[in-house]
Amino acid sequence: MHGKHVRLAHGGGGRLTGDLVREVFLKAFHNPTLNLLADAAPIQIARGQAIAFTTDSFVVSPPFFAGGDIGRLAIAGTVNDLAVSGSIPRYIACSFILEEGFPMEHLERIVQSMAATANEAGVEIVTGDTKTVEKGRGDGIFITTSGIGLTRSDVQISTESIVAGDALILTGTLGDHALAVLKARNQFSLDFEIESDVAPVNGLVATLLDAVPETRFLRDPTRGGVAAVLGETSRDKAWGFILDEQALPITSQVRSLCEILGYDPLTLANEGKVVAVVPADAVEKSLKALQSHPLGRHAAKIGYVDTVRPGIVLLKTLIGGTRVVQVPLGEDLPRIC
Amino acid sequence: MHGKHVRLAHGGGGRLTGDLVREVFLKAFHNPTLNLLADAAPIQIARGQAIAFTTDSFVVSPPFFAGGDIGRLAIAGTVNDLAVSGSIPRYIACSFILEEGFPMEHLERIVQSMAATANEAGVEIVTGDTKTVEKGRGDGIFITTSGIGLTRSDVQISTESIVAGDALILTGTLGDHALAVLKARNQFSLDFEIESDVAPVNGLVATLLDAVPETRFLRDPTRGGVAAVLGETSRDKAWGFILDEQALPITSQVRSLCEILGYDPLTLANEGKVVAVVPADAVEKSLKALQSHPLGRHAAKIGYVDTVRPGIVLLKTLIGGTRVVQVPLGEDLPRIC
Repeated sequence: MHGKHVRLAHGGGGRLTGDLVREVFLKAFHNPTLNLLADAAPIQIARGQAIAFTTDSFVVSPPFFAGGDIGRLAIAGTVNDLAVSGSIPRYIACSFILEEGFPMEHLERIVQSMAATANEAGVEIVTGDTKTVEKGRGDGIFITTSGIGLTRSDVQISTESIVAGDALILTGTLGDHALAVLKARNQFSLDFEIESDVAPVNGLVATLLDAVPETRFLRDPTRGGVAAVLGETSRDKAWGFILDEQALPITSQVRSLCEILGYDPLTLANEGKVVAVVPADAVEKSLKALQSHPLGRHAAKIGYVDTVRPGIVLLKTLIGGTRVVQVPLGEDLPRIC
Repeated sequence: MHGKHVRLAHGGGGRLTGDLVREVFLKAFHNPTLNLLADAAPIQIARGQAIAFTTDSFVVSPPFFAGGDIGRLAIAGTVNDLAVSGSIPRYIACSFILEEGFPMEHLERIVQSMAATANEAGVEIVTGDTKTVEKGRGDGIFITTSGIGLTRSDVQISTESIVAGDALILTGTLGDHALAVLKARNQFSLDFEIESDVAPVNGLVATLLDAVPETRFLRDPTRGGVAAVLGETSRDKAWGFILDEQALPITSQVRSLCEILGYDPLTLANEGKVVAVVPADAVEKSLKALQSHPLGRHAAKIGYVDTVRPGIVLLKTLIGGTRVVQVPLGEDLPRIC
């Protein structure tokens, strides 16, 4: 590469942009569609196929953390949004905003991580863009990924299908991603080992949907955690969620860190987990399917749907009380994804 | 809105993010698909329909300039990439990276401009995302738009179909966008009136393709200008482009500014123009069609395809000489889009 750091000219649309595209992006992502370097990627969709379309920006700070990096996060995040919508993730577009001076070696590591994660998820990176900003006008690297998934016609994932009595399942432990990023920031001097759970969950979701196509609803509890997802989902509905604190899958380490640092694990971001609502009579089948997958080993039923307090998320606490779980304001943990 | 400025919590995925989505984005963009607020938007594609998929980030500085703003640019830019690929732009995803402290009033103006431009282009904004970064870690607002277009089966836009003798058409005057942005930066104290040409060109392109479905190739000359587009297009090909400087549509004002400031109008960004390659015998029909559209009034034949200097762009200058037009390095005008 020209120089060992990102230069403004790498985003200028000229020769240096072309070099960056060929020597960094194409080298890692090459596939017949991307190789065309068309401004818009041509995609064949089978007859009668509906699709799902999503986008997310990633600004996690720092870009590298135990268990992952912004590149893995950007691919997994978009794959996961598609998967929980009941579609099969297939095509990804990536757009980079690079700060002048960002080490080219870091960019290459991130791009390789994106390629590996795309491969793991079975998606193709088919188009992209790069812009640069002056030093001090960005923060190293921001990545926006967009994705197209092929809608599964055998499932119907929608809040509208949720009814009282349905069971609430969480596919794994809470809070690992948020605490891994906090650790990478050196914001507290506690000595602990923790890894982000960032992973594409499309395989896990497929395992569940193949076994339990009557699954009502799926969502990945990222920013704002399980609290935000359940709060937004039950908002203005005729039913609410009742959670059982005892049943929440959580490592003893995350539990103690939350106690020490004053975080509620329900509000912490996860990047390789899914919240699923399934019919009550499908709980066993669901858990069996999920637990058969490496990412679902700790899947557990964490609560149920009830009409006692419509639009509210209630937690039955360990000590036998009950508290309302609020959608967090959003101020606690900026730039976690 | 809560407060008159963007807060970090507006990107935290909690209540403040929800408020921002409902009170700013949904208010401007509302449509049945976006209203679902699904993480992935469901889209119906007709049987046997191929699609085109594109993404671009926009970091223009400043975000407001004569003739447009970053919001209009973000919608038009993605619409235009789809249009020049020979597809009909239909669905847009928008992702925002906002700097803490960005005035909410500016965000609202930008979002309204996006809604108006989407309406003008006949596209729907179907999904989106918002992230925030701390003051000093971004620059007001960055927008990434992704788009899906429906491929026209009656056209075949590809560099592969270009042959010697084909004509090169430019749909309007050169350089207006770049100079309007430079003026907004107050980088030079020259007193001149200039407006960006930023506009969705899908209507203009449709007019051409309906009249001349045998059009070979289309591209919008944005960053790096006509020089970058023609240079990248002819790279490694068995043919090159010969341009006639005399024929270049350019206002006398842009011409004098370029002389004073030392810019080559061929390398300046345009955001409402198209470069088209058409068969030699379709020039008249093409120009007639383009000139019938408000955005194509100044369309002109600016050159042709030749095999004398393969892979090279040559300019026949006003004074009767010939010079090679290089793909610019990319350093001249950062953050022009």
